[in-house]
Amino acid sequence: MEEIRIGLVGSGWMGKAHSSALADAQMLFGPECGVAKFVVVADSNEAADKAAQEKIGFERITTDWRDVVTAPDVDLVDIATPNAFHYEVAKAALANGKNVYCEKPLSISAAESRELAELAAQKGVINYVGFNNTMNPANAYVRELVQSGALGKIMRFTGTYDQDQLLDESLPITWRHINKLAGCGALGDLGSHLLSISQFIMGDIAKVNAMSTVVFPKRPKAPGSSEMADVENEDIMTFMAEYANGAIGTIACSRVATGRKNYLCYEIQGTKGSVRYDLERMGEVQVYFQSDDERDRGFRTVLLNPQMKGYSAFQPAGGISIAYNDMKILEVHELFSAITQGTPYACNFEFGYKIDRTVAAVLESAKTHAWVDVE
Amino acid sequence: MEEIRIGLVGSGWMGKAHSSALADAQMLFGPECGVAKFVVVADSNEAADKAAQEKIGFERITTDWRDVVTAPDVDLVDIATPNAFHYEVAKAALANGKNVYCEKPLSISAAESRELAELAAQKGVINYVGFNNTMNPANAYVRELVQSGALGKIMRFTGTYDQDQLLDESLPITWRHINKLAGCGALGDLGSHLLSISQFIMGDIAKVNAMSTVVFPKRPKAPGSSEMADVENEDIMTFMAEYANGAIGTIACSRVATGRKNYLCYEIQGTKGSVRYDLERMGEVQVYFQSDDERDRGFRTVLLNPQMKGYSAFQPAGGISIAYNDMKILEVHELFSAITQGTPYACNFEFGYKIDRTVAAVLESAKTHAWVDVE
Amino acid sequence: MEEIRIGLVGSGWMGKAHSSALADAQMLFGPECGVAKFVVVADSNEAADKAAQEKIGFERITTDWRDVVTAPDVDLVDIATPNAFHYEVAKAALANGKNVYCEKPLSISAAESRELAELAAQKGVINYVGFNNTMNPANAYVRELVQSGALGKIMRFTGTYDQDQLLDESLPITWRHINKLAGCGALGDLGSHLLSISQFIMGDIAKVNAMSTVVFPKRPKAPGSSEMADVENEDIMTFMAEYANGAIGTIACSRVATGRKNYLCYEIQGTKGSVRYDLERMGEVQVYFQSDDERDRGFRTVLLNPQMKGYSAFQPAGGISIAYNDMKILEVHELFSAITQGTPYACNFEFGYKIDRTVAAVLESAKTHAWVDVE
Amino acid sequence: MEEIRIGLVGSGWMGKAHSSALADAQMLFGPECGVAKFVVVADSNEAADKAAQEKIGFERITTDWRDVVTAPDVDLVDIATPNAFHYEVAKAALANGKNVYCEKPLSISAAESRELAELAAQKGVINYVGFNNTMNPANAYVRELVQSGALGKIMRFTGTYDQDQLLDESLPITWRHINKLAGCGALGDLGSHLLSISQFIMGDIAKVNAMSTVVFPKRPKAPGSSEMADVENEDIMTFMAEYANGAIGTIACSRVATGRKNYLCYEIQGTKGSVRYDLERMGEVQVYFQSDDERDRGFRTVLLNPQMKGYSAFQPAGGISIAYNDMKILEVHELFSAITQGTPYACNFEFGYKIDRTVAAVLESAKTHAWVDVE
Repeated sequence: MEEIRIGLVGSGWMGKAHSSALADAQMLFGPECGVAKFVVVADSNEAADKAAQEKIGFERITTDWRDVVTAPDVDLVDIATPNAFHYEVAKAALANGKNVYCEKPLSISAAESRELAELAAQKGVINYVGFNNTMNPANAYVRELVQSGALGKIMRFTGTYDQDQLLDESLPITWRHINKLAGCGALGDLGSHLLSISQFIMGDIAKVNAMSTVVFPKRPKAPGSSEMADVENEDIMTFMAEYANGAIGTIACSRVATGRKNYLCYEIQGTKGSVRYDLERMGEVQVYFQSDDERDRGFRTVLLNPQMKGYSAFQPAGGISIAYNDMKILEVHELFSAITQGTPYACNFEFGYKIDRTVAAVLESAKTHAWVDVE
Repeated sequence: MEEIRIGLVGSGWMGKAHSSALADAQMLFGPECGVAKFVVVADSNEAADKAAQEKIGFERITTDWRDVVTAPDVDLVDIATPNAFHYEVAKAALANGKNVYCEKPLSISAAESRELAELAAQKGVINYVGFNNTMNPANAYVRELVQSGALGKIMRFTGTYDQDQLLDESLPITWRHINKLAGCGALGDLGSHLLSISQFIMGDIAKVNAMSTVVFPKRPKAPGSSEMADVENEDIMTFMAEYANGAIGTIACSRVATGRKNYLCYEIQGTKGSVRYDLERMGEVQVYFQSDDERDRGFRTVLLNPQMKGYSAFQPAGGISIAYNDMKILEVHELFSAITQGTPYACNFEFGYKIDRTVAAVLESAKTHAWVDVE
Repeated sequence: MEEIRIGLVGSGWMGKAHSSALADAQMLFGPECGVAKFVVVADSNEAADKAAQEKIGFERITTDWRDVVTAPDVDLVDIATPNAFHYEVAKAALANGKNVYCEKPLSISAAESRELAELAAQKGVINYVGFNNTMNPANAYVRELVQSGALGKIMRFTGTYDQDQLLDESLPITWRHINKLAGCGALGDLGSHLLSISQFIMGDIAKVNAMSTVVFPKRPKAPGSSEMADVENEDIMTFMAEYANGAIGTIACSRVATGRKNYLCYEIQGTKGSVRYDLERMGEVQVYFQSDDERDRGFRTVLLNPQMKGYSAFQPAGGISIAYNDMKILEVHELFSAITQGTPYACNFEFGYKIDRTVAAVLESAKTHAWVDVE
Repeated sequence: MEEIRIGLVGSGWMGKAHSSALADAQMLFGPECGVAKFVVVADSNEAADKAAQEKIGFERITTDWRDVVTAPDVDLVDIATPNAFHYEVAKAALANGKNVYCEKPLSISAAESRELAELAAQKGVINYVGFNNTMNPANAYVRELVQSGALGKIMRFTGTYDQDQLLDESLPITWRHINKLAGCGALGDLGSHLLSISQFIMGDIAKVNAMSTVVFPKRPKAPGSSEMADVENEDIMTFMAEYANGAIGTIACSRVATGRKNYLCYEIQGTKGSVRYDLERMGEVQVYFQSDDERDRGFRTVLLNPQMKGYSAFQPAGGISIAYNDMKILEVHELFSAITQGTPYACNFEFGYKIDRTVAAVLESAKTHAWVDVE
C-alpha cells in the first residue's frame, strides 16, 4: 500500500468532488493502487478552506496556493481552481517536480496548454487532465467498437453538447462570459467535453469550419441590476470538421438550448455499424450491426454492463445506474495506478493540449468564416 | 380477374373504412386476387346511406339489411353495424349461403359466436372476422419469432390496451355503456383486440382470473344533461391467464387510462429471447436475442421492413410508416385471396368465437372472483 | 361536384402512388373538393402503361407524354417521371395552360426551376410541387408552434435525413449517381425533403457552408459486374446555414448512414421552447415549453391528434398511426381545393425553386469550401 | 457534530456498500447530521472481516455477531448479513437497546417482521430498513405528485421488476432457491423492492390474488455438476391487488426475464394525470397532465432535477445521472438525521413488516389460487 499525499488547490464544488473521489477510490479498489492522504488545501476564501478541512480531513490549510506546490510532503498537486488559474498553478507544480492532476480544461489557451504539455513531458511526472467523460464505460465501449473495426470504416461523427443553464437572460454576467477568465463560451465549457470524447474515440481533427452566435449579448452586471455588461463569447458554437482518418464531423454546443439539461449526444456511423449515445440517458448505448440478419436488424439498446471498462467497479450486474461522479472515481483510479504502478493513461497534458488547439482553431474559424487547419 | 360483388350493411365510419379498403386492395395488389364491385349498401339512416353511395359508388341503397343478405347479385356480405347486430345479420347471411366479412367482435356473447362459427363451418363459405391487428406486419413478425422457436420456450405474455377516450366524466352514456348493446365494456372494445393478438401468437388461453372496476359509475343521459344514467360495464379490466402452452399471462385494458391514446402494448418473454411492441409506436418492434454476444446484447429497435409479412404491399424499403387503415387493406387482401384462390386465413369465425369465449370467462371471473376455465 | 380530368406522365411506383392518392381523396373528403377522372396515362414502357390503366382505370394510354400535355380533355398534368424529365414536361404543360402537379424535385437545377416558377406565375395556373412532408400533421404542428411565437425567438435548426439504402457497395450504378440525370446525390434525393420542411417552417436560408464526401466512389456498371463506373455525386452532404431570420442551421443527409432507414430528424430550439421530430417515429412530436413549472418540465411526447392540421381526415382520435402515403392524399386535397376553390397552398413552383436554389448554393459551397449566398 | 458509532454485522458486498455510504454521507451533507465512526465489524469469514477493516477502517473485528450487538461503544447496529439472519441479529440488537439499520427485507417471514416491529416500537430506538428505492428522487417526486392530488384520484398501479440474472439454467442452486434461507423467490428478492415503492406511494394493499411459476425446477448442486437439486421457490410471480384506497394493482416480478437487467418499471394512472418510471432509465420520469392544452398534451420526460427530494445532494443542475448507490447515501442521511435530530422517516420496521405481510399474502394466494386479505 502506497500513500499518495494530496495538496489541493481550490476548495469549491469541484475541489470537493475531487476529494470525494480521492477518498472513495480506496474503498472501491482497495489500498493496492494507492491511498489518498489529505495533507493541505489552499483557497483564497478561508471559510471555504476550513469547511473543506472539516468535511474531508486535510491536515492543514493555507490561503496561498504556492504553499501547496512547494510543500515537501505533497506528492500530487490537485488543481480545482477556476479555469484561468490552471496554467499558473500547474506550471509551478511541474517546476517543483510534482505530479499534477488538473481539472479540465488544461488552460484557457492553446499556447499555455502547449507549454504545460512540453514542461510535463520534460519533467517526467504524472500529468493528468480531468476529462471525466473518457472514463465513462459507455465511451470506453464505443472506443473499443471503433478501434476494433467492429463498425468498419468510420464515415461520420455527429455530436452536440446542449444545456439550457444560461437560457434565462436575467442571469447576470459571470466569469464564464469574460474571455480573459474563460477563454471562450459554450465551446470551452461544454464543447470541450465533446471534443475530449471525439479525441478519445476518433483521434485528431485535421481542420474545422465554424459558426457561432451570441443569443443574449448583454446581461445584468449583478442579479436584478439594470446596468448591463457585454457577453464576450459564444452562446452557441457549431462547426464542421475533417478528421485525420478522413471522416466528416459535425459538432456543436449550446448553453442556451431550451429543454436540454445534459444533452451530450453523439452518433458515429461506420460502414459496418453505427452507435449513438446520449448522456441524459447515461446507462444505455445504441448500437447497430450491419452483420445482423436483415429482418431482425435494429439499433440495440445496450445497457452498461460489467464487460465495459470501469463498470464492474460499481455494480456486479448490468443495467444499474452509475453516476456522473463515479467517473471521477475511475479517473482517480487511473491516476493513482499511473503513479503507483506506471500504467499508461490517455488524458495526459498532451491530450489536453490537443483539445485546446482544436478549440483555438474553431474560435479562429468562427471569426474568419473560413476553414482553419488544427495546429 | 374475378369480380366480388359487395353488399355492405352499415355505412358509418367503419363501413366507410371497409369500403375504402375494398377499393384500395385492387390498386395495391392488382386485379388478380379479386376486384370489389359495390352493389348495395344498407343503413337505417337513409342520409348516411346516400352519402355512402355517392362517395363509394354503390349501385343501389336500402334501409333494410335483409335486402342485402338475400340479394342474388351479392357474393360477400360485409357487416359494419354496431356490435349488437352482428349476430342477426351474419346468421341470415350465412343461412343464405353468402360469404361473410364481419367487423370485430363476431358477436356480443360467446353463445352467439359459437352458433355463428358452427353455422359457417357447416355452410362451407368464407367467414372472416375483422381483427385487423393480426394483419399488422409487426404482429406477424412476432408470431413468426414465437412459432419458429427463435424466442425459445415462451414463459410470459404481458399486455395492456389503454386509451383515455372515456376519461372525461361529462361524456354522456352511449351504447358502449349498455350491456345489451355492447356485451361488456373496455374488455370487448379494447381488450378483444389484445386477445386477438394473444390468440394469433400464443394460441389458446386455458383459464383466467379477473378483476374489474367502474371508475365513473354514472354518466349524463345526454350531453350537458343533469340527469344521470348507470354505466353498466367495466372501465378497467385486468386479469391473469394460464395459456394452454403453460405460459403465464397478465392482460389488462382501460378506456379511462389518462394519457394513453392507443397504447396496445405487450411483451413476450421466452427462454431465448423477448419482444415488446407498442401500437403508439406502430413502426417498431423491440426484440432481444439471448444468443447475441453478452457485451453487445440489448433490445433491438427493429423497424418494420419488407421482410415482414404485408409490409411490402405499401413500401419498398423499411422504416416508412404504414397506417392503421392499411391493416384493413391487408385484411381485404386476405379475404379476397380466400374467396378467389382458397388460401387459408387465421381470422375465421372459429377464431372470433375463441376470443369471445375468453371474454366470457373473464367476465365471469370478474364476477365470481375466482379462476374460471375458458370453455 | 367538379370533375378534375387527370393526365398522368410516368406510371412507375410514384405514378401509382399519385393515382392512388387521387382516387382516395374523394373517399376521405367527399366529392365537394373535386373528383379525379383518370383520362390518360403516358409511359414510354407500354407494358407499365397498360398495367396502370388496368389497376387505376385510365380511359386511354399513350407512349408519348406530348399527347398528355396537349390533350384538350385534361385539366391537370401529373408529372411522376424520373427527375430529369420534370422540366421539359412541366414547361410544355404550362405552355399549354394546364394545371401542373409535379413530383418533387421541381427540376434538377435552380435555373430550370426558376424558369418554371416564372412561367407558372405568368400563366396563372395551379402549380404544385409534391413535397409531401409539408402535409405531415407533425410538421404542420411544428410550423404553427414556430409561427405563433410559442417557441419564442428561434435560435437554431438542426436536422439530418439519413438512410442506408446505398450502403451496400455491390449495388450498381443507377441514374441517382449520374449528375445529368439526378442533378446531385444525397442532397437532392434526401436533403431536399429536409429543406422543404425547413423552408416551410423556418423560411429562407440566407447563406450556406458545405462539406461533402463520396464514400463509395466506384460502383459496378451492372449487378454482379466487375466493370466499375464512377459515382459522380455525394453520398454524404453536411452544411451550416444562416437563416434570414438570424437562426443558425446545421443540416445534413446521407444515403449510406448505417442503421438509418428513414431518419429525417430535426430539432428546433427557440427561446421559449423546443421541438424534435423523427420520421422513423412518425406519430409523435417531442415538444418542450419553458413556461411549464420548473420541477415538471420535460420534452412532451405529443402524439398526432385531431387538433393538428390534416390528421382528422384519417382518424377520429389521437395516437393512431397514419401513413407516409396519407401525406400524398392530403397533398391531393390541397391541390384539388386550390383548383376548385382557389384556396392558397404553400408548395407552389416558387417554393420548389427556393429549395433548388438552396441546393445549388450548397453544391457550390461544397466545391469552393467557402460560404455561399443563396441566390 | 455528533459521532455515531457503527457496529456492522456482515462484511460482504452489501456490508461494503453500507460502509461506503456511511462514510460518504458526511462529505456530502457535512458533519452536522452525524459522523460515522467505524467501531467494529463482525463476519464469520475472518478474511472478509480483515479486508473490510483495512478498506474501511474499523477499529476492531470479530467473528461473533453477538460481540457487536452487546458492545457498549456501539450506537448503531448495521445488519448486512444474508436475509435469513436479519431476524436474530435485529432482535438481539433491539433487546440491547441499540438503534438498528437493517438491510431489506426486514426478515424472511411476516411473523418475524411483526415481532421485530413491535419490539422496536416498544424499545423506542431508531429502526430503519434499507428499502433504498424510497430514497430515489424519482420515487419521491412521484409520491409528491400522488399525495398532492396532482394526478387526481388514483385508479391503477401497474408494475413489474424483471431481471434475467437467473435465466441461465446451468447456474447452480444457491440460498436464493431455498425457502428456509430466502423465504421465497423472485417475490422476496425483486418484488419486495417494487412493493416498497408501492407502499411508499400508494399506501396499504388490502387483498391480493396471485399466480406463480418455476421455469427451471431443478438446478445443478454445484457449478458444472450433473447432480441436480430442487428449486423451492418461484421464478416468476404475478398478482392482482386491491388497494385500501380503491385502486386496482397489477404487480409482477421475474428473475428469468430475458433481456431485462434492472427493469423495475411502474405506471400510475390517476384521473388527472399519469406517471411512468423505469429504473433502467433511472434519470427520467414520464409524467402526463390532463390539464395541459389538448393539442399539446403528452407524457413529459422529466429529468431528475434539484426540485426533487434528495437530488441536490449530488448535483447542482438537472439531467445529470445519479447512481443506484447514491440512494444508500441518502438512506444514511435519513437514518442519521433521525438519530441526531429526531426527524421522521418512512422506512421503519413497521414499514418493513407491511411489505412482508403483503409478501406472505401473495405467497398464500399463489398456493390457494384465491383472493387473500393482507393481514
